[in-house]
Amino acid sequence: MYAPPVQRLITELGKLPGIGQRTAQRLAFHILRADAEDALGLAEAIREVKAKMGLCEICFNLADEARCPICRDERRDVALICVVEEPGDIVPMERTHEYRGRYHVLGGALSPIDGVDPEDLKLGELYARVEAGGITEVVIATNPTTTGEATALHIAAHLRGTAPDVSVTRLASGLPVGGDLEYADEVTLGKAFSGRRAL
Amino acid sequence: MYAPPVQRLITELGKLPGIGQRTAQRLAFHILRADAEDALGLAEAIREVKAKMGLCEICFNLADEARCPICRDERRDVALICVVEEPGDIVPMERTHEYRGRYHVLGGALSPIDGVDPEDLKLGELYARVEAGGITEVVIATNPTTTGEATALHIAAHLRGTAPDVSVTRLASGLPVGGDLEYADEVTLGKAFSGRRAL
Repeated sequence: MYAPPVQRLITELGKLPGIGQRTAQRLAFHILRADAEDALGLAEAIREVKAKMGLCEICFNLADEARCPICRDERRDVALICVVEEPGDIVPMERTHEYRGRYHVLGGALSPIDGVDPEDLKLGELYARVEAGGITEVVIATNPTTTGEATALHIAAHLRGTAPDVSVTRLASGLPVGGDLEYADEVTLGKAFSGRRAL
Repeated sequence: MYAPPVQRLITELGKLPGIGQRTAQRLAFHILRADAEDALGLAEAIREVKAKMGLCEICFNLADEARCPICRDERRDVALICVVEEPGDIVPMERTHEYRGRYHVLGGALSPIDGVDPEDLKLGELYARVEAGGITEVVIATNPTTTGEATALHIAAHLRGTAPDVSVTRLASGLPVGGDLEYADEVTLGKAFSGRRAL
């Protein structure tokens, strides 16, 4: 129905997550209409990101050098490690300005049903960082999902055995700020209840 | 917050229609995680489409040669012209298999408020095709919107003056097939009523 270059572009756009056939067509026609500069800017940005970006040798965050900007920052507290699933989880954490330590990106969460086993994540590298010494706390900030919880428990059990002096903590689960008790699901509400704090 | 190549990719993705900041971030992280082959396939498809695709010299549809596949097809009825706003409007028309003539792509619809005047559309080229002779019917398939209707009336008025023997028609407006009278808006229902046909 479309000329081959147009069809190829629609196919490639349709491989992106959340982009269906209709949206891919709409985006393709936008790119066809757009200034050459804008369209080629996107093509070049894709090439550049694949050519230049790698993983930080310390924490496996995205990095355009051997180390990511956070691990290069000498003002960060090197005694704290916050464990996250994906590089994209670091930005919302940083936005809170609550945390001044370093990170460790696992590259996913344990999920045997999807074939994600401990050796598929950067767990060995995390344990090596802790065993190298100088770490006082590991904050586990995997997602509050089944797989994120399983990963958190797996890490906590390991570190209890190998590094009993390191405090291992987990982000609190509970009611989102600005939320409404009436609309809270029972699991979240249960977590909020069991995690209640003295005022 | 992000390394410059990642930020640049997010910015470029965010220029696409309907792609907000959040979605652009999600797509950028997908591209970062994707195989180099898939990511570069998208970059190459964008380059290729901008390098190879132009407009058909007859109808201004997208074309990877001087003429688009429809104008090259000798089985099409050259006495019929269907006028559409954008190249993307041709594919849904073709899917109906109701029309076997050629097209004419205006490149938009008249909208003085947005600065789109008759000379910004391929109207002169349409009138030249009709005046060259051999045309029996011009089907106006601009969108059933204010600007599409204004464009249709503009074309009809011009052709009545310069080519009175050519029949000028407009796609029917009415209830969508499978729709429900209860949920029809009053303008559509009014159009369906005034366009009613004998059974």
